[in-house]
Amino acid sequence: MDDAALTRADIEAAAERIAGHAVRTPLLNAPSLDAAVGRRIFVKAECLQRTGSFKFRGAYNALSQGQGGVVAFSSGNHAQGVALAARMLGRDAVIVMPSDAPKVKIANTRAYGAEILLYDRAAEDRDQIGARLQAERGLDLVRPFDDPRVVAGQGTCGLELRSDLPDGVDEVLVCCGGGGLAAGIALALEGRATVRPVEPVGFDDVGRSLRSGRRETNAAMDGSICDAILTPSPGEVTFPILSRLCGPGLAVSDAEALRAMALAWQHLRIVLEPGGAVALAAGLFHHDGDIAVVASGGNVDRDVFVRALDHA
Amino acid sequence: MDDAALTRADIEAAAERIAGHAVRTPLLNAPSLDAAVGRRIFVKAECLQRTGSFKFRGAYNALSQGQGGVVAFSSGNHAQGVALAARMLGRDAVIVMPSDAPKVKIANTRAYGAEILLYDRAAEDRDQIGARLQAERGLDLVRPFDDPRVVAGQGTCGLELRSDLPDGVDEVLVCCGGGGLAAGIALALEGRATVRPVEPVGFDDVGRSLRSGRRETNAAMDGSICDAILTPSPGEVTFPILSRLCGPGLAVSDAEALRAMALAWQHLRIVLEPGGAVALAAGLFHHDGDIAVVASGGNVDRDVFVRALDHA
Repeated sequence: MDDAALTRADIEAAAERIAGHAVRTPLLNAPSLDAAVGRRIFVKAECLQRTGSFKFRGAYNALSQGQGGVVAFSSGNHAQGVALAARMLGRDAVIVMPSDAPKVKIANTRAYGAEILLYDRAAEDRDQIGARLQAERGLDLVRPFDDPRVVAGQGTCGLELRSDLPDGVDEVLVCCGGGGLAAGIALALEGRATVRPVEPVGFDDVGRSLRSGRRETNAAMDGSICDAILTPSPGEVTFPILSRLCGPGLAVSDAEALRAMALAWQHLRIVLEPGGAVALAAGLFHHDGDIAVVASGGNVDRDVFVRALDHA
Repeated sequence: MDDAALTRADIEAAAERIAGHAVRTPLLNAPSLDAAVGRRIFVKAECLQRTGSFKFRGAYNALSQGQGGVVAFSSGNHAQGVALAARMLGRDAVIVMPSDAPKVKIANTRAYGAEILLYDRAAEDRDQIGARLQAERGLDLVRPFDDPRVVAGQGTCGLELRSDLPDGVDEVLVCCGGGGLAAGIALALEGRATVRPVEPVGFDDVGRSLRSGRRETNAAMDGSICDAILTPSPGEVTFPILSRLCGPGLAVSDAEALRAMALAWQHLRIVLEPGGAVALAAGLFHHDGDIAVVASGGNVDRDVFVRALDHA
């Protein structure tokens, strides 16, 4: 597949591959939350997707197009998506995860039957580890966002939004790490709605890249509780798409993400992780019209969740 | 409508009335939870319904068939369903609630614009209060379960299950207070699957009534955290249906309900209240085959939810 040529047709093909395997997630709306903020907020609940995040879409789309063993590196959500897709498709999976990933993500990835390799984020480079495994063991490397198969799979979330978006809503806020989800949804929604990527304050490489027109890099990779979306820079596959279709970006604080988790718990009865709540946080605290947001994941350790409820 | 004649046709009519107003809730399945218990568990997520419980279905079906003010008594979930349905249909609502109902339920009911009358459960009788308001103010009384319009509305949940139930699953466990949800689903699933009502240990009036063949009463109305489903006895409308189609009943402890809430949080990323988790608890701890359960509500105060997470 030619990266630059990724189109809505590729996303429609992905939708056919994942049909019956992935959850068609609901677009939720809470009248009590709307009353509290004085406008309408629609929430695409990807936390209800298999493995608890949208990542299963891209993983299943990528893995269903090949055979043999696969390797992936991930802080946890892509790991779980690849592990479950591999098991469903009868492929072996090796997952390279940082040793400080949320315990629930490591435990779930192991429960799906994957082989786990933990590494030290401060001392080792996950790209090098992945490349070595790819070379030494002949594994199919499935990158978390910089892979057209993965971007096309994530875009299936956008096709569902295209069907479900209410009249009058023409902006969709999307939690953004490397931009796979935002780019995929933007392709799916082209001509219908605009995607605005949302990142944690201080880790807004995509937002800054959209402003400068070139791929910017975050100064650090630590210092936010939004572990799922801390990536160094937009991807080579994703940035051209983001640059053409998305923006401007938004950035939210950890406290805003925690408060959004509490409001999602109270009004929508869904469980979000901090990185999966940043788009809702932006919709609540950095926007003033009717809006749709993607709640991208819900794999969170107990202590962080209880801390979020203190923000209710 | 003749109570005894309530049939699937009434439920199909209700489904037409609520279409586009109620959420068509997903039937969720978590591969990680299945792996932990060694069998398949399917969860109808009614906590994602408008107002956070199935009660909106029956309330909207009832209220859409009349006009003028309405009165309802409820520990909280029926209250919210009636309050929101009334607002959507332009009818005034007076809701009679116990003063010790969960704070979130009182706050949400008020947020939907209803007039709230709090009463002391130990000293006053809610039926008498409701009847007096009905007489004095000419209001339409919408009972929480003993009303054919309400039972038919709750049954729409069963029609969705009838479409979505996987092959090989022919039992559905349903959280049960007065039996409106269980009776409605049983009518909708007649000939396809059997409904088994689930209650808290010590408050299993429906289970005992199904065994004895007559309407049994609970000795007390206090002593379980499952506030949503503590009712004195099966209803006059619901019991004949339950008796013909449902059972045997199951009963779970508060600790089992809390543990089910924790597992739903972890594996399904949904928020359940104790009374909304008893069917899942029965499916996890009192059953040994593939099973579907209805997770009927998710309106829970923070402290109870945090206590549940300690059971993870």
